Amino acid sequence: MSTQLVEIEAAQAAERTSQEIVQENRDYTLFSWSVQGAANPMLMKRAEGVYFWDGDDNRWLDFSAQLINMNVGHQHPKVLEAIKKQVDELCFAGPGFATEPRGVLGKKLAEVTGLAKAFFTLGGSEANENAMKIARLFTGRNKIITRYRSYHGATMGSMTASGDPRRWPVEPGIPGVVRAFDPYCYRCPFGQKVETCHRECVSHIEEIIQMEGPNEIAAILVEGITGSNGILVPPDDYYPKLRALCDKYGILLIDDEVMSGFGRTGKYLATQHYGIKPDIVTAAKGLTSGYMPLGTVIVSDPIAQYFETHMLYGGLTYSGHPVSCAAANANLAVYEEEQIFENVDTQGVYLADRLNAIKDKFDCVGDVRSIGLFSVIELVKDKASKEPLAPFNGTSAEMAKLAMYLKSQHLYAFTRFNMLWVCPPLVITQQQLAEGLDIIERGLALVDEALQHSRNHPEEVHAPVRLTSASH
Amino acid sequence: MSTQLVEIEAAQAAERTSQEIVQENRDYTLFSWSVQGAANPMLMKRAEGVYFWDGDDNRWLDFSAQLINMNVGHQHPKVLEAIKKQVDELCFAGPGFATEPRGVLGKKLAEVTGLAKAFFTLGGSEANENAMKIARLFTGRNKIITRYRSYHGATMGSMTASGDPRRWPVEPGIPGVVRAFDPYCYRCPFGQKVETCHRECVSHIEEIIQMEGPNEIAAILVEGITGSNGILVPPDDYYPKLRALCDKYGILLIDDEVMSGFGRTGKYLATQHYGIKPDIVTAAKGLTSGYMPLGTVIVSDPIAQYFETHMLYGGLTYSGHPVSCAAANANLAVYEEEQIFENVDTQGVYLADRLNAIKDKFDCVGDVRSIGLFSVIELVKDKASKEPLAPFNGTSAEMAKLAMYLKSQHLYAFTRFNMLWVCPPLVITQQQLAEGLDIIERGLALVDEALQHSRNHPEEVHAPVRLTSASH
Ligand SMILES: Cc1ncc(COP(=O)(O)O)c(C=O)c1O
Ligand SMILES: Cc1ncc(COP(=O)(O)O)c(C=O)c1O
Repeated sequence: MSTQLVEIEAAQAAERTSQEIVQENRDYTLFSWSVQGAANPMLMKRAEGVYFWDGDDNRWLDFSAQLINMNVGHQHPKVLEAIKKQVDELCFAGPGFATEPRGVLGKKLAEVTGLAKAFFTLGGSEANENAMKIARLFTGRNKIITRYRSYHGATMGSMTASGDPRRWPVEPGIPGVVRAFDPYCYRCPFGQKVETCHRECVSHIEEIIQMEGPNEIAAILVEGITGSNGILVPPDDYYPKLRALCDKYGILLIDDEVMSGFGRTGKYLATQHYGIKPDIVTAAKGLTSGYMPLGTVIVSDPIAQYFETHMLYGGLTYSGHPVSCAAANANLAVYEEEQIFENVDTQGVYLADRLNAIKDKFDCVGDVRSIGLFSVIELVKDKASKEPLAPFNGTSAEMAKLAMYLKSQHLYAFTRFNMLWVCPPLVITQQQLAEGLDIIERGLALVDEALQHSRNHPEEVHAPVRLTSASH
Repeated sequence: MSTQLVEIEAAQAAERTSQEIVQENRDYTLFSWSVQGAANPMLMKRAEGVYFWDGDDNRWLDFSAQLINMNVGHQHPKVLEAIKKQVDELCFAGPGFATEPRGVLGKKLAEVTGLAKAFFTLGGSEANENAMKIARLFTGRNKIITRYRSYHGATMGSMTASGDPRRWPVEPGIPGVVRAFDPYCYRCPFGQKVETCHRECVSHIEEIIQMEGPNEIAAILVEGITGSNGILVPPDDYYPKLRALCDKYGILLIDDEVMSGFGRTGKYLATQHYGIKPDIVTAAKGLTSGYMPLGTVIVSDPIAQYFETHMLYGGLTYSGHPVSCAAANANLAVYEEEQIFENVDTQGVYLADRLNAIKDKFDCVGDVRSIGLFSVIELVKDKASKEPLAPFNGTSAEMAKLAMYLKSQHLYAFTRFNMLWVCPPLVITQQQLAEGLDIIERGLALVDEALQHSRNHPEEVHAPVRLTSASH
């Protein structure tokens, strides 16, 4: 057989294997938030830094850091090394044991948050479950105020705390959750403009507190910066005002930093941009960059003191898993050694500039919002009317077209409703950012063309589709 | 300095370090199900097989397999190797991706359970959350029947599903959970004897179904064999009758095999001893032996088919984590290569024989129950009255004395209420089993002595303490 034939056969064999692997995944495993028949899983064969390779050896630029979690990028050698070392030393100890990586991580988390003690879970959902439980036990109160445009996880407590429509089909959830509006200045629910408003996004929460009973409310639970519901960067005085409201009524402020924390915005906590300190912080994702599953609830000193003499009614088999803690320790060491926050600051400025230019350039871009490397492009049919390019909890032909185009260019980015996220690994270079943003610009040009075509041919326009799209 | 002095100094340095590590863990991390001030965490320095070593280099015999999860024992070289290999190859891929270990594990789980597709979570709580969600979505019904003496996890949905008193302080939980009694033949809630009863433990569930509305009930959720509420091995016809009841009313049977599954009883599922097939199985713990966090929900073919065309409203960032799946694959390969089930059968017979002899020998032993290497000793003040040695959800001086004695002998075993569990790693030898059981016998002799003393000196008897003890 000629060398060429051997190569072709080898390639075919490899391809067959990739298809077989995908088929096995489809045949025997269920995919999150999906109609399984419509799920189209891609094989991830290998990955490095901001790139990964699919089953056909195409290289993809990861503009979503997977689920906005691979902050130090794929396959960072130092994190891999630390994991393997811990595996060899001690791969598991029950949650009642002290282990070295657990203590080291606890101390580090106290340092970087200014809080006191960490409880370890495996992901963000369980972290928020425990945060709410802790708030209820500590305050002796039951109600939790959360916001509509939020996602806090998929277990019953965290799902109910989420405003996200993913909760609709599984309601009723837990009792005691009360929902407030968001600091969504582009579409202010109070019909205000940020330059002239009275921060009704905060003041209406005080009205809610009055109506629900100040002494009944254990906590206000908010995402540091709202992530999968649209990177809603609040006005600068939002958090100081919210903190003051909590203090006035003895309500705890729970800051869900699962997505916005650990460097995504250039700080450990997004709320650190606003000079306030929450009573409880939850984190996951960026904490280990996803190398190992880990979540955490970090509590203030008064809360930690309370549980010195009161039972903490919460636990899980893998709380404080040594390998997960070791992965987090290594990940956070990489943050410091490689000055990740500095890179976020630098690239964040470049990203913001590019996004602002994009907003000016394209008719279909209504708003862009970013903080650090946490950003979104919000698409509209028309800049003046702000009519979304796809309805809330739905999609449209134009959004599908955009998503397809990005895919065809092997840009991995997250789209949902009428938004497109740009949240790459935090180690991304300006050149890599430019590479992806150029692709996005070409995609937005196609959307502008399609909208122009629709305006010229109104008889061809399809009704938008309302359905919950696959997402985080 | 003399060699001896150097050695002493080195030993002191090591000891100081152990203490420092424990202190750091106490200062900065929260421990599950504990009053933190009373938590007394031990450092786990290293571990191997059925043993681990504390900060003072004492060797402990692990009769609890940590939290009844380290089925192949500590630091099994083949599992460690497989984890490290996967870490090097691909440490993370988002839940929407196909990966090789995920597909392989899905297929294996379908094979060993006779079910169709697996959804991956990180632990048992999240597995049960998703199982209940899936049952509700599939049936369009809302209510879930669970049993009083059960633990299904600590997140809001799973905690409510648990009958365990750990739910009390965090109620109200989710709506729609209805509780039934357990097949607890030693203390039959119906006042029956197993030889002459009509299986009221099943028939009363039919009465509940009638009262709650047969068309309102999505699922009956039960632990394959009740674990942390006392190894309640049901009569042989319990499961066939429960399965028939489910079929009669179109109710799904969810089998929580988090603790009883994956070899603990000598089979993949405890319910396989009774020749029935659940509609949904949940697992965690033994699935990876705890080397990596992983849970799963495995569904029947009709359920899998349903989600081909309907949205699965559930997901989590780390669903299908490649390293967790690789750890499970390696763990299950060890099961086969080392004929783990055969060892469970062999040692299980020896264990049952020893437990029966213990029951005959000690006045304080009311009942012993075991299946495979899943066993409990139930302690009483008096064999005839069956008065528990500690109240439900409480402890007593005698139980504390027993626990202290086992600790002093460096036997790591789980005690709760009036029970003592014997659930070692499944790789244990007869000699190791004998070593631990001999210690337990000496502990039980102390309890018998104490009880004898109390009977002779009634004026000295203390009231038992009702409190929730630290546990799983
Ligand atoms: C803000 C926020 N909180 C909680 C979660 C839930 O985390 P997990 O998927 O690890 O359960 C997410 C996941 O996307 C999130 O974005
Ligand atoms: C039967 C059963 N189900 C569920 C769970 C919860 O599992 P996890 O602690 O991994 O959340 C446990 C834990 O002990 C259990 O024993």
